[in-house]
Amino acid sequence: MNIDKLMKPRKICIVGASEKEGFGGDTCRNVISHMDENRYFLVNPKRNTIFGKKAYPSVSDVPEDFDLAVICTPASSVEQILRDAAARGARGAVVYASGYKEVGTAEGLAAQESLKELCDKLDIALMGPNCAGYINYIDAIYPFAFISEERDRTGSIGFVSQSGQLCLSMMDNLTPKFSFSISAGNCAITEMEDYIDFLVDDEFTKVIAVYLEGAKNPTKLADSFRKAAFKRKPVVVLKTGKSEKGCKLAVSHTGSLAGSDKAYDAFFKKFGVIRVDDLEELIYTAHLFATLKELPKHAGFASISLSGGETGICADVASAFGVEFPDFAPDTTAKLRVMLPSYASPANPLDATATLSYNAERFAACLRVLVQDEAVATVLLGYTLLQKIADPAIRYMAEAIKTVSEENGAKPMIMVSFAGNTRNEEYKTILESCGVPILPPTLYAFKILRYLADFIGYDYRDHDLSLAIPSRPCRETRQALSEHAAKEVVARYGIPFPKEAIAQSIEEAKELARGMAYPLAAKIDSTDILHKSDIGCVKLNIRDEAELEAAYGEILANALEHRPEACIGGVNVQEMAKAGVEMIVGVTGTPQFGPAVLVGMGGVFVEVFEDTALALAPLSREEARNLILSLKGTKLLTGYRGSAPCDLEAIVDVLLAISKMASDRKDDLVELDMNPVFVYERGVCAVDAVLVSDGGA
Amino acid sequence: MNIDKLMKPRKICIVGASEKEGFGGDTCRNVISHMDENRYFLVNPKRNTIFGKKAYPSVSDVPEDFDLAVICTPASSVEQILRDAAARGARGAVVYASGYKEVGTAEGLAAQESLKELCDKLDIALMGPNCAGYINYIDAIYPFAFISEERDRTGSIGFVSQSGQLCLSMMDNLTPKFSFSISAGNCAITEMEDYIDFLVDDEFTKVIAVYLEGAKNPTKLADSFRKAAFKRKPVVVLKTGKSEKGCKLAVSHTGSLAGSDKAYDAFFKKFGVIRVDDLEELIYTAHLFATLKELPKHAGFASISLSGGETGICADVASAFGVEFPDFAPDTTAKLRVMLPSYASPANPLDATATLSYNAERFAACLRVLVQDEAVATVLLGYTLLQKIADPAIRYMAEAIKTVSEENGAKPMIMVSFAGNTRNEEYKTILESCGVPILPPTLYAFKILRYLADFIGYDYRDHDLSLAIPSRPCRETRQALSEHAAKEVVARYGIPFPKEAIAQSIEEAKELARGMAYPLAAKIDSTDILHKSDIGCVKLNIRDEAELEAAYGEILANALEHRPEACIGGVNVQEMAKAGVEMIVGVTGTPQFGPAVLVGMGGVFVEVFEDTALALAPLSREEARNLILSLKGTKLLTGYRGSAPCDLEAIVDVLLAISKMASDRKDDLVELDMNPVFVYERGVCAVDAVLVSDGGA
Repeated sequence: MNIDKLMKPRKICIVGASEKEGFGGDTCRNVISHMDENRYFLVNPKRNTIFGKKAYPSVSDVPEDFDLAVICTPASSVEQILRDAAARGARGAVVYASGYKEVGTAEGLAAQESLKELCDKLDIALMGPNCAGYINYIDAIYPFAFISEERDRTGSIGFVSQSGQLCLSMMDNLTPKFSFSISAGNCAITEMEDYIDFLVDDEFTKVIAVYLEGAKNPTKLADSFRKAAFKRKPVVVLKTGKSEKGCKLAVSHTGSLAGSDKAYDAFFKKFGVIRVDDLEELIYTAHLFATLKELPKHAGFASISLSGGETGICADVASAFGVEFPDFAPDTTAKLRVMLPSYASPANPLDATATLSYNAERFAACLRVLVQDEAVATVLLGYTLLQKIADPAIRYMAEAIKTVSEENGAKPMIMVSFAGNTRNEEYKTILESCGVPILPPTLYAFKILRYLADFIGYDYRDHDLSLAIPSRPCRETRQALSEHAAKEVVARYGIPFPKEAIAQSIEEAKELARGMAYPLAAKIDSTDILHKSDIGCVKLNIRDEAELEAAYGEILANALEHRPEACIGGVNVQEMAKAGVEMIVGVTGTPQFGPAVLVGMGGVFVEVFEDTALALAPLSREEARNLILSLKGTKLLTGYRGSAPCDLEAIVDVLLAISKMASDRKDDLVELDMNPVFVYERGVCAVDAVLVSDGGA
Repeated sequence: MNIDKLMKPRKICIVGASEKEGFGGDTCRNVISHMDENRYFLVNPKRNTIFGKKAYPSVSDVPEDFDLAVICTPASSVEQILRDAAARGARGAVVYASGYKEVGTAEGLAAQESLKELCDKLDIALMGPNCAGYINYIDAIYPFAFISEERDRTGSIGFVSQSGQLCLSMMDNLTPKFSFSISAGNCAITEMEDYIDFLVDDEFTKVIAVYLEGAKNPTKLADSFRKAAFKRKPVVVLKTGKSEKGCKLAVSHTGSLAGSDKAYDAFFKKFGVIRVDDLEELIYTAHLFATLKELPKHAGFASISLSGGETGICADVASAFGVEFPDFAPDTTAKLRVMLPSYASPANPLDATATLSYNAERFAACLRVLVQDEAVATVLLGYTLLQKIADPAIRYMAEAIKTVSEENGAKPMIMVSFAGNTRNEEYKTILESCGVPILPPTLYAFKILRYLADFIGYDYRDHDLSLAIPSRPCRETRQALSEHAAKEVVARYGIPFPKEAIAQSIEEAKELARGMAYPLAAKIDSTDILHKSDIGCVKLNIRDEAELEAAYGEILANALEHRPEACIGGVNVQEMAKAGVEMIVGVTGTPQFGPAVLVGMGGVFVEVFEDTALALAPLSREEARNLILSLKGTKLLTGYRGSAPCDLEAIVDVLLAISKMASDRKDDLVELDMNPVFVYERGVCAVDAVLVSDGGA
């Protein structure tokens, strides 16, 4: 959907313009204060002027055609206004009115459907209904239902929110500066995906901040995220639902597909989208990217604070978030030793003591030394900028920061605060104009710096950015293959299993066993019997032909006794795999994003420590390897207590094979579970496989 | 040390009083602005008046005796002034001057030692040197070296900081209100422990906030913490050094004993002291306790926000910190359903939608319903109070909050913000006077609420609050017992081991074996051979007498070959313990707090997942049990995959026995390591023991 007429209209028409409090009045106040008067028309049948500007009795009386209708009137009047506006060339509309899907009634739903059909017919990109509109700060377009501050907020954050309240909270904050700020409402016609795509394309938008309730059109969303990844344009998303209660809320509030929150995580991770946990993180992560003049070259940070206590806090909190302070080069240490008082230790993080901060030249010299160290890509300035400046230190520091930021070889600098409040506007502006964002106190600051480090470390070339999104919804039916049949399917993708075959008689079993190496296992082969061992239909460690014969008989007898109605394919005779490091590998279908490949350390590790990880298919080789290395129990594979390392590439191959299979069967595969897969010093062996489809292949 | 003369002087004397910028001038400005003029004297040899107040040429010219000398002059003059002040009755002194231990030179150290001796001789409690002084807000005493705000900051937080910078940052913050604020400096004479003890005793101090570099006098600190625990007075401590780099910094900055940071954690935990990670947490955790009129009765929270997005954030972030939103009682849900718009779901956390917030009566009614639910002990109000109020919602909400907070059966209410900034002073004051603190955004808020929940859950009766602090420093020497000797020591405390005995000959070995059950193990017995299995001196799974004979010979031969010089006690013949759930139990000495008991899941769990926990000896039964239950792998003990639960009380008994032993041997025990200890459905069995002492028993 092209939404340029909606988002970048040449002229707009406010229908329901007014001087009263409320949407119509506040929109007029915004428009009149901020917009070029040749770009808007006001419509009100009962007044000739509004705030001294001419008002027209109806849309058809407006003297020129326009692109965008801003409809401030109640739901009942909206459709007729849309028709009239379309006749005047409008291809965009903003509808504030509520009374649609959000009220949860049949009438509301019907009204929304009707609106949608009309917009399709009229070819109108509509924002809302039940929205607060938007501000285009770049072109000064203000169809927004709440009074916007006089202060210039123009910047490079493209913000779109599915929650009006969070949109207002973000805009009320004094820090972020926007290219666009969009309160998207019900997204009945123009969807979140359209806005995001628009912002990815928009040249004035440096970073995209999103409050997303759920993915409605995963393919479209993936397309936008892919484009952003290629452009290296950061996308920061607040999507709640990580917790059980949060997930329930997300579903009840939005009626969006629930799905596993882990699928969202995997989706965002694949495209390098930064997922944040609350509004403060959204504000400041976006602000960080918007303010930095260039991205750090790598994830090595230096920190400079004015006291030991502050430096200690930085060390501890950074460590908790895996933000790294590499050791300084010997040359750096030597230079710092000369600059600092005798009692200071020139280490990273650096306690520069307060003395340096009262002398711009000395502070600049110290910053220069940090910047010149190759291990350092970003300098963190630990300092609490207050609203009212009593201590003059910041004057000298700001001068030094400005000087150093303009020099050749300058590196990004970021201020980290130790207490939260509103910052002094003068120094905030000075620092921001040097490209130095001020982050909130350390818990937020280092979490956000972790996001920065992750973003720097993300390379789209390491990821397979195609997705295996199903072409049809999953059916309700479930069909499980027998173990043998499941293995046959999976083996075709190159997964090694122990030798096995189905025997229809005791003689055939013995004959098959002659081609195998004892010990053997024997199991019933039946799609009707899933929990085989519970009813004595699995015999392990069969050491010779005599034991095999006994086992065969017992298995059949048990099957007959416990499941007389089951259709029996025979007895599955298998070699026993030798034990290795136990892993589990599987596939699970996600309702939005297609199949996800799951891997975990097996046995007690998955049961007790829940040590599993998942990624969306298809996987690149890098993704598969990193998925395995992200497990807590990865030490079991890479060698510990002097044991030889396992064949990591062989288990990577298994994941890639499974990923291929999952992609091929995205439409019907519901679940694959291989548990255990043994990993050896060389090679792997899968021992079991359960495969469930929706029967629609 | 009684520091009442220092902290609550009747009269004080400012030596080095001045009108200039700097310590002397700023102290005078503070004192003159805030103090009763009958309570201070100004001394300056060169002036008759300072800011219009009389100045005396010397301490001896001051017309009355005084309790406290505030010395604003350089280090060189301090000792003579102390002598003069002592002669005028002073038993307290504040010394701002630097040039002591903090500079790290021999001269500085000597100056500090000399100062300490003098104070001992003169019986003077001295704050500093190298400090910024303090403010006693309760009695309006202002010997503080930086200008203090005019605004009344009197409250109930007793704050003491070993860092001047952090002290100033905390005081610069607009939120906390203090009984005392102390910048303690070098703590050469009056120690951190003295200030903390003073604040524990002080009736005006409701909560104690501390920035602590390290425990200098652990016994004294424990005494104060114990007293605070008995009084249920919250102590909130910021102590850096959790990370490797932070720990190094703490040591280099303060010269305090490093020790394991986990020992500090265990120390704080024993006494219910809240350990926070940064200054923002320190400020707001203290503010929370200071503002609440009573503590919540239990850890069940209800949350009410005005939008779905905010409610989702609360659900997710609370869950990340284990803050619990119990389900509402059916009655609550039914009442809410009537009050809320049709599209709202009456769940906890509650999205009350914005409509309620514009009507004080309806908002109050909703709060009342939440407060009446027994599952709810605290109501969280999700709302971002801005500095400038545009949206009138807060007017109605504040009215409702005030009404409900004054009713019978009122429960604590806490406001949680979604964006950080300075809050509107008017509404902040209204809310605080109702006992409603405003917390920073959710990452901080829910971390702090976790601390609150932990504090509510802490009961000193569950803990053994005595400590086994050694009476002498640990010696450098190390002495390891042989396995057999170590087991004998530990067995005396009731730890069960498999049957074993030392054989001096092959015949004796066979004779001993006749009284045991095969399979057996045989190991060399020698204090000189620690890594026995590496050189073939351990044989396991000996099935009969023939194998025993062979094993005996091989063990001796291997010992002779690899350690010809070793003193051999014989061959240790043991029954093999049957395998159970593998745990490790040990003791490790901490330099500050005496022995700590360590427990962990054994084998791969401790190696790969580092799943261990420690607590300071002696342990109460509750502490021992909770320590075990705090392990991630505790499911292995409590039963999983249908396996029977293990004998938890038996492993608790082992911990208590080890705790007793550790306490008895606090002076010489360096380390005890029992790995593995098998835990069975009934009982336990320890298989090995390594015991190292400093040889000084």
